[in-house]
Amino acid sequence: MNEAAKTFDGWYVLHDFRTVDWSLWKQAAGDKQASVLREFNHFLSRLDVTQEAKIGSHGLFTILGQKADLMLMTLRPTIDELQEIETSFNKLQIAEYLTPAYSYVSVVELSNYMASGSENPEEDPRIQARLKPILPKWPYVCFYPMDKRRDGSDNWYMLPMDERKELMYSHGKIGRGYAGAVKQIISGSVGFDDWEWGVTLFSQDVLQFKKLVYEMRFDEVSARYGEFGSFYVGQRVELEGIAPFFHVQPN
Amino acid sequence: MNEAAKTFDGWYVLHDFRTVDWSLWKQAAGDKQASVLREFNHFLSRLDVTQEAKIGSHGLFTILGQKADLMLMTLRPTIDELQEIETSFNKLQIAEYLTPAYSYVSVVELSNYMASGSENPEEDPRIQARLKPILPKWPYVCFYPMDKRRDGSDNWYMLPMDERKELMYSHGKIGRGYAGAVKQIISGSVGFDDWEWGVTLFSQDVLQFKKLVYEMRFDEVSARYGEFGSFYVGQRVELEGIAPFFHVQPN
Amino acid sequence: MNEAAKTFDGWYVLHDFRTVDWSLWKQAAGDKQASVLREFNHFLSRLDVTQEAKIGSHGLFTILGQKADLMLMTLRPTIDELQEIETSFNKLQIAEYLTPAYSYVSVVELSNYMASGSENPEEDPRIQARLKPILPKWPYVCFYPMDKRRDGSDNWYMLPMDERKELMYSHGKIGRGYAGAVKQIISGSVGFDDWEWGVTLFSQDVLQFKKLVYEMRFDEVSARYGEFGSFYVGQRVELEGIAPFFHVQPN
Amino acid sequence: MNEAAKTFDGWYVLHDFRTVDWSLWKQAAGDKQASVLREFNHFLSRLDVTQEAKIGSHGLFTILGQKADLMLMTLRPTIDELQEIETSFNKLQIAEYLTPAYSYVSVVELSNYMASGSENPEEDPRIQARLKPILPKWPYVCFYPMDKRRDGSDNWYMLPMDERKELMYSHGKIGRGYAGAVKQIISGSVGFDDWEWGVTLFSQDVLQFKKLVYEMRFDEVSARYGEFGSFYVGQRVELEGIAPFFHVQPN
Amino acid sequence: MNEAAKTFDGWYVLHDFRTVDWSLWKQAAGDKQASVLREFNHFLSRLDVTQEAKIGSHGLFTILGQKADLMLMTLRPTIDELQEIETSFNKLQIAEYLTPAYSYVSVVELSNYMASGSENPEEDPRIQARLKPILPKWPYVCFYPMDKRRDGSDNWYMLPMDERKELMYSHGKIGRGYAGAVKQIISGSVGFDDWEWGVTLFSQDVLQFKKLVYEMRFDEVSARYGEFGSFYVGQRVELEGIAPFFHVQPN
Repeated sequence: MNEAAKTFDGWYVLHDFRTVDWSLWKQAAGDKQASVLREFNHFLSRLDVTQEAKIGSHGLFTILGQKADLMLMTLRPTIDELQEIETSFNKLQIAEYLTPAYSYVSVVELSNYMASGSENPEEDPRIQARLKPILPKWPYVCFYPMDKRRDGSDNWYMLPMDERKELMYSHGKIGRGYAGAVKQIISGSVGFDDWEWGVTLFSQDVLQFKKLVYEMRFDEVSARYGEFGSFYVGQRVELEGIAPFFHVQPN
Repeated sequence: MNEAAKTFDGWYVLHDFRTVDWSLWKQAAGDKQASVLREFNHFLSRLDVTQEAKIGSHGLFTILGQKADLMLMTLRPTIDELQEIETSFNKLQIAEYLTPAYSYVSVVELSNYMASGSENPEEDPRIQARLKPILPKWPYVCFYPMDKRRDGSDNWYMLPMDERKELMYSHGKIGRGYAGAVKQIISGSVGFDDWEWGVTLFSQDVLQFKKLVYEMRFDEVSARYGEFGSFYVGQRVELEGIAPFFHVQPN
Repeated sequence: MNEAAKTFDGWYVLHDFRTVDWSLWKQAAGDKQASVLREFNHFLSRLDVTQEAKIGSHGLFTILGQKADLMLMTLRPTIDELQEIETSFNKLQIAEYLTPAYSYVSVVELSNYMASGSENPEEDPRIQARLKPILPKWPYVCFYPMDKRRDGSDNWYMLPMDERKELMYSHGKIGRGYAGAVKQIISGSVGFDDWEWGVTLFSQDVLQFKKLVYEMRFDEVSARYGEFGSFYVGQRVELEGIAPFFHVQPN
Repeated sequence: MNEAAKTFDGWYVLHDFRTVDWSLWKQAAGDKQASVLREFNHFLSRLDVTQEAKIGSHGLFTILGQKADLMLMTLRPTIDELQEIETSFNKLQIAEYLTPAYSYVSVVELSNYMASGSENPEEDPRIQARLKPILPKWPYVCFYPMDKRRDGSDNWYMLPMDERKELMYSHGKIGRGYAGAVKQIISGSVGFDDWEWGVTLFSQDVLQFKKLVYEMRFDEVSARYGEFGSFYVGQRVELEGIAPFFHVQPN
Repeated sequence: MNEAAKTFDGWYVLHDFRTVDWSLWKQAAGDKQASVLREFNHFLSRLDVTQEAKIGSHGLFTILGQKADLMLMTLRPTIDELQEIETSFNKLQIAEYLTPAYSYVSVVELSNYMASGSENPEEDPRIQARLKPILPKWPYVCFYPMDKRRDGSDNWYMLPMDERKELMYSHGKIGRGYAGAVKQIISGSVGFDDWEWGVTLFSQDVLQFKKLVYEMRFDEVSARYGEFGSFYVGQRVELEGIAPFFHVQPN
């Protein structure tokens, strides 16, 4: 197999963005709202049980701006579990008030460039932990999908392996400069969704997202070879934050 | 005729993607839901009869993420039959709860490059079987449309026949490395739909889709000449899986 | 005037694509449906009268896939008549069940390259017949809009007239290879709609559309200079086919 | 100031495209329809008063095809007046039946290239008349937005002033060849809307739009440097044409 | 850290564009409308309190054309405050009549090129004032997002720092030529939204927007390296202007 195409893959990921239909939500009576939120809480609590067992992880986030209001990011060992979670979510009463806005299907991935320090990545516990990550409880999240460019003389996939490796090494160095400030999960989506990768960043300081992505843009890997989709930025919502988020004055 | 443009064509294909309107579905009474599903089952059973007679094939799949919830892929000897199936599907009660999400019109195709090993492809039973495929009952499906690029110096259609043939040969070698792991159906859609080909992959391990498509991306045929549309990934639904998929708690 | 820009123009054309709102249609009572179809038949019969008088032509087609369900193609000597037909169509009861899906405005055109064999194209009856075509009653139709590319070194409009003429000649030769199998109507839409030309093909064998368009793609005119919009493929519906198409089981 | 960027600017322009919701319109009772049209007539009559005073101009047009059904083009000395007209239009009863389809904000503009024959353009009455045009009462209209290309070696804004001037001169010559047949209003929209210019053409023969735009496409200014948006073509509607346009059979 | 990627960042910004659903608004009874506007006024008055305390700023604007009817631009020290304002806005009664049209998330930014005259930008009060701007009460506003191009030989991010600095210096000179006529707020959105920057301009003469943006387009920074999104132009609405804007005749 082509060395360049070798990856180490972990949990499958579904990013599920929704927009609240506030008009409809406000039409629901107070006790209807309470029952809807109770069911939603119950759904999220079951996800918590999986996360505590370390056989999956998830996070609920508000998203700033009109692209979406909420994003549920879920990680599981199989794509079947994600399909089941998506369908269950869609059948919840809360889903009647949450218009689909965007979604992304991928699998946590470590590229061969990155894992190359390890003797046997399949058994290296540090690498395995990165492939099956429990989402950090940091307040800010940033998601964007991306491609490596294939355009005339800027064609990543036509570069020799050594050149790509070297470029990725210096690219990774920028990322490592943000260690402690930004945690990132790279997930591969070739064959699964419309871009080649999804990038999910977490931080305790939202400005770090801008600093990191902007600094990387001057690096050749991004400058010449990066194509970026939409950027979503938001804040973590804990279980106890859901009721206040949905609280509306009785009309 | 231009040798390069020669193809062997088999059954016509309609990929029909739909999104469930769960809010509307939940508003239907339990006995209405039962009657809707009964009719849908009956429709699918009639497709089964055709498949058993080997004069067509089809598969129903759930799709992960918000692009669609279900995809019905149907193959038939004539485009008239596909039009009839589409119209019948649209008239079903279930269609009132299934918003159109995407569709693709194509015909199973074997290119001249691929068939060239055969003395008389029109009579070679192995080739004929590939042109009139019964869909494998493997659990995972992946669909994407694609073009060959015509952009400046990366213009597939301006390459000499020999160069295209050689490139396709080494491209095909990657595919053959996945024999047993991934079955693929290539269908041509020039003149029928917005991309030049549709690719439908089947596997027992969803990760093989990513591995195959990613490995191919480093091959010159994809790297320099491939343009890709949206990717859809999902799971096969058997007749007995339909009721559970649509089952909702009474409100 | 620039010789290259000279064209011979005939009847104006409106391609009008619609999607059936089956849910709404099924809600209409049986006698309402009958009255709606009666009015629609009457509308189409009046178009037939014009066609019989050879002062216009039209065809109604089903379209395969979700892009549209029906397409009405109408040709008339003036654009005023097309506007009147469009407005009349919109006011029909049937239009309440037909969501607009796409439309295309153009005029049947013969380019100077093509007409150059004729001494006086304005009076040549063969050319005049091509500019005011009665649509063939062949079962299959294919429509797509297209541009000539203006991109870096692949700029059709910067080529010298002689080179364009030569390229178009060999391009036309491919088309002539399909004489008898495919009839084509080229209509110009520069200044009228978003692409430069609309191409409408008719055949008794739907596969000929794919063969023709694919073979042309290897020709330099398409390979280097062709940009293509969406492709629509469908089947002719005669007056007596309308009732069966719209027939639904009473709920 | 950069000479190239110098322009002479006149009246502000709003092109406002709407689609008739015929289903809703037909649901309105006959006397409701009459009152809606009376109010719309009154609104348009007030615009007429402004036009007669030569402190503004406007035209109402039907648009062929599904992009829109009507277009109201309004010109005023200030953008404040256009905002007021737009808001008033939106508050009319007729607006409840007119879905927004597209709009364009610009200001009538004469480029420095064009005005250079004049000693003092600010006081030249011929130039002032072109900057504050009363729309011709010709039956056909064509609108499209456009950009000058900035792409690799085809970058209009990197050309020296002299070269641009020379190119525009020969480009203008084509336009002047249509004097008498086509009247054009060029309006600048840099900083106001998504394209750099809007072009509105008027003619007594709709085919002249195609001839003019197509002939220009072979000119280097368009061929190498022109990028075009959507094209809209339609017919002028006088006050007395409104009632027939909206007339529908009682259901 | 890469000097080029260094920025000084101030208040976070949310541009929130909405379209009025006039049909729905007109259906509301007069006293309902009054109560809705009272609540909206109260919401805006609370924003005023923040602005008077100089711990934030905001402006409400009408937008010309169909892209949006209103735009609320809000600046705050934290992104959390913007999320809270957005959610509160969505829960207002007025939001039931305001369909989301577009939004933009960014942070007021001063690039290293611009700030370089200062010894210690972090403490320079003039720079700090620019990073935490109170919006000018000028009547006209213009907003557009933009990128620096990364395309073949026109790749801003591959230029050496010195060249970028020099280019930005002469680019800035054009802007300084409009000092007094146009106030601009540049906000960075890398990692936050789909373009790299948002540009908000204010003026007492709307034509200055066109003059400034058009003059800049001939400057190499824009001509070769600028990519622009949609342009929005509008007028400031003061508290006392809201009731007239929403005033409709009782049906």
